[in-house]
Amino acid sequence: MESYKKNQNLGSCTNDQKLSHQSKHLLLELYRCDFEKLDDESFLRCTLNRAAKLAKATVLNLISNKFEPQGVTAIALLAESHISIHTWPESNYSAVDIFTCGRNMFPEFASQYLIEALNAEEHYLRVIERNPPAAVLKEARTFI
Amino acid sequence: MESYKKNQNLGSCTNDQKLSHQSKHLLLELYRCDFEKLDDESFLRCTLNRAAKLAKATVLNLISNKFEPQGVTAIALLAESHISIHTWPESNYSAVDIFTCGRNMFPEFASQYLIEALNAEEHYLRVIERNPPAAVLKEARTFI
Repeated sequence: MESYKKNQNLGSCTNDQKLSHQSKHLLLELYRCDFEKLDDESFLRCTLNRAAKLAKATVLNLISNKFEPQGVTAIALLAESHISIHTWPESNYSAVDIFTCGRNMFPEFASQYLIEALNAEEHYLRVIERNPPAAVLKEARTFI
Repeated sequence: MESYKKNQNLGSCTNDQKLSHQSKHLLLELYRCDFEKLDDESFLRCTLNRAAKLAKATVLNLISNKFEPQGVTAIALLAESHISIHTWPESNYSAVDIFTCGRNMFPEFASQYLIEALNAEEHYLRVIERNPPAAVLKEARTFI
């Protein structure tokens, strides 16, 4: 199994990509979403992958489960923590969390993408700062 | 693959187990934990399984990743949402989240167990109410 090292240097950043040392946990409620999309396991796996890329995160594993008669859970294990989505198509509702701990992460990009990808007509986003020791923020799992 | 149905009735409850329709997201910071435990992938997988059982949750899948030179992420996909743990042994720190959506869940039991299992000398717990439509709380994925 490939192992991932911490403390590798970041590659080059564009001028508008400021380095940030953050540990954010986004809790996102999505309302009045598209039923079909919320019940489509394959679509949700792809959507989670894309959301992770937009956040500049690295997906190391992705699991999902389809419920009967409807509903899906999908979770991406990231080098920088995780993203999860739990759907209740019968209520056109989805609960998302995006936890990123590392330099130069953009979890809000993932959040905005998920709102649009699931056609959520309403949403409720809470951004919560986690409280790691300072050393964790400097040593977050980042990649070239 | 075995599929899981929603809306199944709960099994019998003891008198002191009140039915609760809740959607709680616990964010738990664990400080000054045991280094060896935080770096032991196998131990953390077992610990997460045990925590889920104490919360009365059903583990449908469990994934983990060992980082180099140290650190582990483990995530349990639950019938009732998920539990994750991310560890930074070099800082004796771990970030946990426990999301349970369903009847008769006890996420605080999982939280207390993790605090003790990892020998955390300090912790910081935030309990956040998620905001699903009422129908989701009634129809949460529960099992006999």
